[in-house]
Amino acid sequence: MSKVKNILFIMSDQLRADYLGCNGHPHLKTRNIDALAAKGVNFTRAYVQAPVCGPSRMSTYTGRYVSSHGATWNKSPIRVDELTMGAALQAQGLRSALVGKSHIVVDPEARTRLGCAENTLLAQGGFEPVERDDGVHRDGNVSLDLAYNAFLRAKGYEGDNPWHSHANSVEGENGEVLSGWQFRNANRPARVAEAHSETAYMTDRALAFIEAQGDDPWFLHLSYIKPHWPYIAPAPYHNMYAPDQVASALKSDRERAEPHPIAKVLMEISDSEAFAKEETRQAVIPTYMGLVHQIDDHVGRLLALLERIGRMEDTLIVFTSDHGDHLGDHWLADKGMFYEQATRVPLIIYDPRPQADPTRGTSSDALVEAIDLFPTFLDALGAPVPNHRLEGESLIPLLTGAMTETQRAAIICEMDYAFIETREALSLPVDRAMGRMVRTKTWKYVHFDSLPPQLFDLTSDPEELNDLGTDPDHEAVRRDMRGLLLDWATTRKARITVDHHSAANWLSAGKKKGIAKSSW
Amino acid sequence: MSKVKNILFIMSDQLRADYLGCNGHPHLKTRNIDALAAKGVNFTRAYVQAPVCGPSRMSTYTGRYVSSHGATWNKSPIRVDELTMGAALQAQGLRSALVGKSHIVVDPEARTRLGCAENTLLAQGGFEPVERDDGVHRDGNVSLDLAYNAFLRAKGYEGDNPWHSHANSVEGENGEVLSGWQFRNANRPARVAEAHSETAYMTDRALAFIEAQGDDPWFLHLSYIKPHWPYIAPAPYHNMYAPDQVASALKSDRERAEPHPIAKVLMEISDSEAFAKEETRQAVIPTYMGLVHQIDDHVGRLLALLERIGRMEDTLIVFTSDHGDHLGDHWLADKGMFYEQATRVPLIIYDPRPQADPTRGTSSDALVEAIDLFPTFLDALGAPVPNHRLEGESLIPLLTGAMTETQRAAIICEMDYAFIETREALSLPVDRAMGRMVRTKTWKYVHFDSLPPQLFDLTSDPEELNDLGTDPDHEAVRRDMRGLLLDWATTRKARITVDHHSAANWLSAGKKKGIAKSSW
Repeated sequence: MSKVKNILFIMSDQLRADYLGCNGHPHLKTRNIDALAAKGVNFTRAYVQAPVCGPSRMSTYTGRYVSSHGATWNKSPIRVDELTMGAALQAQGLRSALVGKSHIVVDPEARTRLGCAENTLLAQGGFEPVERDDGVHRDGNVSLDLAYNAFLRAKGYEGDNPWHSHANSVEGENGEVLSGWQFRNANRPARVAEAHSETAYMTDRALAFIEAQGDDPWFLHLSYIKPHWPYIAPAPYHNMYAPDQVASALKSDRERAEPHPIAKVLMEISDSEAFAKEETRQAVIPTYMGLVHQIDDHVGRLLALLERIGRMEDTLIVFTSDHGDHLGDHWLADKGMFYEQATRVPLIIYDPRPQADPTRGTSSDALVEAIDLFPTFLDALGAPVPNHRLEGESLIPLLTGAMTETQRAAIICEMDYAFIETREALSLPVDRAMGRMVRTKTWKYVHFDSLPPQLFDLTSDPEELNDLGTDPDHEAVRRDMRGLLLDWATTRKARITVDHHSAANWLSAGKKKGIAKSSW
Repeated sequence: MSKVKNILFIMSDQLRADYLGCNGHPHLKTRNIDALAAKGVNFTRAYVQAPVCGPSRMSTYTGRYVSSHGATWNKSPIRVDELTMGAALQAQGLRSALVGKSHIVVDPEARTRLGCAENTLLAQGGFEPVERDDGVHRDGNVSLDLAYNAFLRAKGYEGDNPWHSHANSVEGENGEVLSGWQFRNANRPARVAEAHSETAYMTDRALAFIEAQGDDPWFLHLSYIKPHWPYIAPAPYHNMYAPDQVASALKSDRERAEPHPIAKVLMEISDSEAFAKEETRQAVIPTYMGLVHQIDDHVGRLLALLERIGRMEDTLIVFTSDHGDHLGDHWLADKGMFYEQATRVPLIIYDPRPQADPTRGTSSDALVEAIDLFPTFLDALGAPVPNHRLEGESLIPLLTGAMTETQRAAIICEMDYAFIETREALSLPVDRAMGRMVRTKTWKYVHFDSLPPQLFDLTSDPEELNDLGTDPDHEAVRRDMRGLLLDWATTRKARITVDHHSAANWLSAGKKKGIAKSSW
């Protein structure tokens, strides 16, 4: 099998699966991403390993479940010896670069304790920071040397933090500056030209990187910060879509009346309370759609460059997201639960090689996880996959048509409620605050360390409005799902310091050294 | 509460719980260990986290379950950022020293990759190797600079490897050298004087260390290599006990006729086949008893020194083992399954402080694990316990009488069958070869990734001769035990880079920085 040479790994932030044209959105136009899907495979049951940025990304980057890498929350550090796709692909001879958000923090305590604090690439998790920008630079939380702010200032947008005051703020009727953090302002244009917005800027950086690489192999993680809040788009994307194109919220009265304890707490946070009102959804969702449309236009620029310089022939391209957005469904804003809106993401993979021709333009409903990308990348390069560490599966057999399903029995997604309002409100023990989704093609079970479970029959209730978590008639289903969870929990990969071949040959190696059992 | 100043942590190797006088052995005399028990607490339900040296020790040293530290087999490395009791107590100002066996290997690949390969104390897992000797130096597998061999040569025992040719060999009728690896030779004396045997030598090194420390605080891990095989004792210990003092083997015809698949493989290994015969047991077990008696005599020397220099007043003393020995019970030799003979170990803790006076000379049947020692040591020093890493519980409340039970619902012990004959014989997948014991006060359930379970009713069948693992009448019990296993498996401590206080205050820290949710 031939090998790919380069990898372009595009991630958007907080983009739910159904907000793409190729995934059936009735109004949103994403012609470039759709075109990529037409050249590759569109995975329609692709899930992230956590419904929140940090742990989801750490799973994607390490190829391991949240409980395996342990970085359960935003900016919670990964262990110093975790192997990231950045480091692994660098070791394969690709220049591994980041443009945009990674959220990676590598355990500073251990780096100091072990004496490797000076290793700056290690501190970046093995991704060369061509342009690292984790986004959400609210005043008081902004690095003074943020490159994007320097860029904005050079373009004439003044102030300490033009990310906030310009790229994520708007102007009112009388020219007054209004914050992008207020949903009511979402339908006004950003105070920057489109060419100076975050999405355009990061794309420019990516284009420059790809061109500069020439024929040298590269792995580029282009990681857009949008459509994550603040929901502010530059003109013309701020009003490209209209309130009457906003779908009704998927929610039921019963959900509101008898919420799961976690849902109850999250429903009462200010953003969820706002999204419970249609005026918020009608102000925000058209802008969310505009932000996606904008990303699509910039994906078009990337594809055009790759086409022009011949890189479509040797570059694997992935488009995905780190999690979704409830957008008012289930009476919730943001993410942090296990509904499809939060956990299912777009995943389109374009493999340039002839052997992937049989699947071009098809979609796959195989059970796919974000941790599958790391082994897929190694596999596409013809590199060995360290299966003693990586918990995902290479998707190359699905791309060639050799297989139509993954090996897994269920999707697992995890959320640590120790860090957020839920812990305090529900008096959860800080070390027993996990929720874990077990999703097959027909059932979704959510197990909580210290709370009742949730259960949804995805056949009769695909909208997940009828929680059977405590329904007495479904105990047998819950038992089966707990069985799947137990099997997962007891077979995660902890033995990362010994590869499979060495483990299997440990004893015979010992015998060669003369270590043998005694006898009479 | 006052604090202890020093810690003497004595571990023997392969010493099963019932081979001590204070634990009811009808013939074996262990007056010094018994005296320690009379001054402290004798824990009669103390279990190791693995029935094999390496992973058991790594659990004891890190305070974490095998599935958490990942070093599942002998010399399988621990991850570079695992915190050991050696390093943690060093950080508390105690000189942390090892005399004897630790078996620690710290991931060499990661140490090289991260650039901390020069850190020699790190490579020793934070234990200063005053005398590191992992034992079992069979010819072909011996380091030429082994200090004990140099010592033996200086005493006139010549050859490349006097550990083998003298300390663990014997002489036949005509003066011919016979190997200690043959069980038939176990009842002959070693070819070294008692004072030059491993146990005496290590004790000498420990005594010298303690004396040299003077009033400076210390943590000494004195880790004896015996009574681990080769079963060879120096005179007079080689024939201090007689064949007629050997208890009958605990085994049943049904175990032999319908063995669990793992047991079947292990029964067919040469040492088990030998131990199935009484002649082996009668040759070996008196020597095993003699080796224990010898250790007891040397513990007496340690206690005498501590008494003489006043260190009994400020030194916490622990006596335990890393696992047991089947000694022919259940038709098995050695260890590697979950029977009491392999998993239950002696555990005696002497706490010198007045607050421990109420429990002196008592025994406790609380469910105790080897991982409890690390937090116990920190607690005794008045140091904070890093509960985001450590999975054990401090036993200090049991020593003061404040509590009579631990918090845990069950003991967990794990074994990775990927490394040994069982994997090949049973075609186990290398990453689905774990067995896990869940032991309450009344039941022992053993869950295997890829094999049928075992179940024993410890009330009616304390000898574990009647396996109910597939008995249809006990499905409800097995289900409950799987529930305990699921609870354990989903609440292990993976989030080791963030302490509990930081996790609980993450969001409020973020709010102080101005990160807050949006609203209308």
